Amino acid sequence: MSNVEQRLAEIGRTVPDVVPPVAAYIPAVRSGSYIYTSGQLPMVAGALTGTGKVGAEVTAEDAKELAATCAINAIAAVKSVIGDLDKVVRVVKVVGFVASDPSFTGQPGVINGASELLKQAFGDAGVHARSAVGVAVLPLDAPVEVEIIVEVAD
Amino acid sequence: MSNVEQRLAEIGRTVPDVVPPVAAYIPAVRSGSYIYTSGQLPMVAGALTGTGKVGAEVTAEDAKELAATCAINAIAAVKSVIGDLDKVVRVVKVVGFVASDPSFTGQPGVINGASELLKQAFGDAGVHARSAVGVAVLPLDAPVEVEIIVEVAD
Amino acid sequence: MSNVEQRLAEIGRTVPDVVPPVAAYIPAVRSGSYIYTSGQLPMVAGALTGTGKVGAEVTAEDAKELAATCAINAIAAVKSVIGDLDKVVRVVKVVGFVASDPSFTGQPGVINGASELLKQAFGDAGVHARSAVGVAVLPLDAPVEVEIIVEVAD
Repeated sequence: MSNVEQRLAEIGRTVPDVVPPVAAYIPAVRSGSYIYTSGQLPMVAGALTGTGKVGAEVTAEDAKELAATCAINAIAAVKSVIGDLDKVVRVVKVVGFVASDPSFTGQPGVINGASELLKQAFGDAGVHARSAVGVAVLPLDAPVEVEIIVEVAD
Repeated sequence: MSNVEQRLAEIGRTVPDVVPPVAAYIPAVRSGSYIYTSGQLPMVAGALTGTGKVGAEVTAEDAKELAATCAINAIAAVKSVIGDLDKVVRVVKVVGFVASDPSFTGQPGVINGASELLKQAFGDAGVHARSAVGVAVLPLDAPVEVEIIVEVAD
Repeated sequence: MSNVEQRLAEIGRTVPDVVPPVAAYIPAVRSGSYIYTSGQLPMVAGALTGTGKVGAEVTAEDAKELAATCAINAIAAVKSVIGDLDKVVRVVKVVGFVASDPSFTGQPGVINGASELLKQAFGDAGVHARSAVGVAVLPLDAPVEVEIIVEVAD
């Protein structure tokens, strides 16, 4: 087990297997020293763990936990490409999309759920640049979607 | 004609010329082995082929075809930088923005229009990581906007 | 002072200091020859210079100036990583998010505020690929958020 997965196990998190989408896209692509993940929804065992707009049907606190689930799924997508997560040398960039009621302006607090989990998983290498935005709606009415770019060792 | 354009011709698609925007940005930039395109709207011969929000004025089926047009325009933007599309070694990343009624949650099906076209054009090299999100509104009231990152041979 | 900052000074713009967010993310990350910035809001001296949705509470003209402020903050984020802004060899990509009333379709004109400032700061190296989209809402009810990717000299 990688050090990354050991650190996650200590906080009760497991990196799931990835079920590749049946489509002309895949969970993650490696190009050179970089892995780009697809946008990850808060799926657990193939089902969304919440739906709705944050600030309306979903609270900011619940959405933060959903963002952590998105981040775990992004880590799983990275693992599907490199196998050993300890090859990640840096989480470079995170974009977090929050399906938001137009009155909800707490997107940074929601996406902190993903950012904090990446820090817990990768330590200093998990500290990244980030954008958080509030969108109208996400696939399957998911409240949060997170994509990441990581740099990996050759 | 590149193999990419021959494959597109077989499915009745033509890569158009690019009219560079009169502004401080351009359709695509090459940096190292990568080309980043600007967000592409479903323009044909300089005019939008549809307007409105998907799930309201625009059906998911029509939006999927508009996403394919966005992808063709992204390919044209790449061609404007490298000339020979057979130099593309991988479509790395696609982001698809769908102007969505807040009740419409089928963004993945819409952006499949772009993903499938990229697969048809580039074969296995066209299989990419992808994010699809539903936004409030897009430039000129376009229903779809697609940007891509491709890796090219040196 | 860098040439970049001299050019900005000539148009009355100053690159501010960066206050790193107290969170598991930072204003910008360098990886290889690239710097990715976090999404930048139109903050001046720690306070937003405007709030609300463009096309409703905020005019397109005011939003364009806010986008320029976002771009200045993105330049500051880059500077926080490399120190000397003259090491920037290319602004590769800009993504501009505009918090938009669903009826407002002038996102490109708003984000021109950022694009034009980057051209003024970096000259031809400031000409980039770009996406502009209209989102439901942004952090702290900011009207505009801008992220950039720049290539830097080794």
